[in-house]
Amino acid sequence: MKLMAVTDDQQSVKALAEKIISIKDVIDYVQIREKSKSVQNIVSLIDSLLRNGVKKEKIIVNDRLDVALCMNIPTVHLPEHGLPVKLVKQRYPHILVGCSVHSVEKAKEAEVNGADYVIYGHCFETNSKKGLPPNGIQPLSQIKKELNIPVYAIGGITLETLPSVKEVGADGVALMSAIFAADDPHSLTKKVSEAIQDEK
Amino acid sequence: MKLMAVTDDQQSVKALAEKIISIKDVIDYVQIREKSKSVQNIVSLIDSLLRNGVKKEKIIVNDRLDVALCMNIPTVHLPEHGLPVKLVKQRYPHILVGCSVHSVEKAKEAEVNGADYVIYGHCFETNSKKGLPPNGIQPLSQIKKELNIPVYAIGGITLETLPSVKEVGADGVALMSAIFAADDPHSLTKKVSEAIQDEK
Repeated sequence: MKLMAVTDDQQSVKALAEKIISIKDVIDYVQIREKSKSVQNIVSLIDSLLRNGVKKEKIIVNDRLDVALCMNIPTVHLPEHGLPVKLVKQRYPHILVGCSVHSVEKAKEAEVNGADYVIYGHCFETNSKKGLPPNGIQPLSQIKKELNIPVYAIGGITLETLPSVKEVGADGVALMSAIFAADDPHSLTKKVSEAIQDEK
Repeated sequence: MKLMAVTDDQQSVKALAEKIISIKDVIDYVQIREKSKSVQNIVSLIDSLLRNGVKKEKIIVNDRLDVALCMNIPTVHLPEHGLPVKLVKQRYPHILVGCSVHSVEKAKEAEVNGADYVIYGHCFETNSKKGLPPNGIQPLSQIKKELNIPVYAIGGITLETLPSVKEVGADGVALMSAIFAADDPHSLTKKVSEAIQDEK
């Protein structure tokens, strides 16, 4: 299973860069999802990550394909009302594209349109989606049966919920607040990484 | 002098498309600046313009270089905290880049970094910048002396203020609310266009 950290849009460029750099060797990917920051700040953040040894192959830019293109980042994650996957893959076949999906139907549509992976959620109750009932883990099991591309689980993924995500066969997990709101992001991420390795 | 319409982010995709299509033959450019719309809606809007005879050379995409690239629109207008001009011109020299500037210094910097035009403002009091004192028209005269690239004036440009903008030698004017809040955008835009032509 793969491990993706998704930034929480709750900290300064400097603090966020430090946290990402501290976990760079225990994660497979970090998705930069900083909706309230200016594009200039996102460019600065990515620049700082690259200069501090975070491999560009580990970085995923949420929404802004242009930032990815200008900074030679190979992967972009498209939000639900962002650029159409099909348009992006037609124009930039070399760019890897991920999509957020909330149902089996949308997951199939994303694959047909050329997505390289999907993130399904949210699976469990989470502070990032407070008050919204989770979509549950069962559709993920169905998505895994229907799709050939990797499927990540997001939303309330913790050391406690991880076993049930493994059970349904997810290819990876995406964690936001569990990592970025942790007192020690490196220690938490290492534990999750080890829990994933254990049963590989 | 050139005439640029800048969208006001105040109407539906359908209403906005209709207004732009109605003025397409009397404007030189239309800058799509719809900050509160989803990227998906901006793509739909531009698609609708192209299918209804608005030439791609007349369209300028605000902020989203990726939308411009994916839709083969040749020009992008970068906001103050958007992608750095230099980065965009290095990576995409064929893309025309405009910048918003508010001082002589920033205008010079934009030109040095490779900008193809600047928009200076806001010149006069305007509803789009309510409560903010205008930067006035004098710096524009200075910018014209120092820069080789075209300089557009924005902010409170009307049939009444147009003569003073001409006097300082602006290469063009950019109008937002004057056009898009007008009862008859076509008639208003035609009058401005004629006023510009008169003294060409």
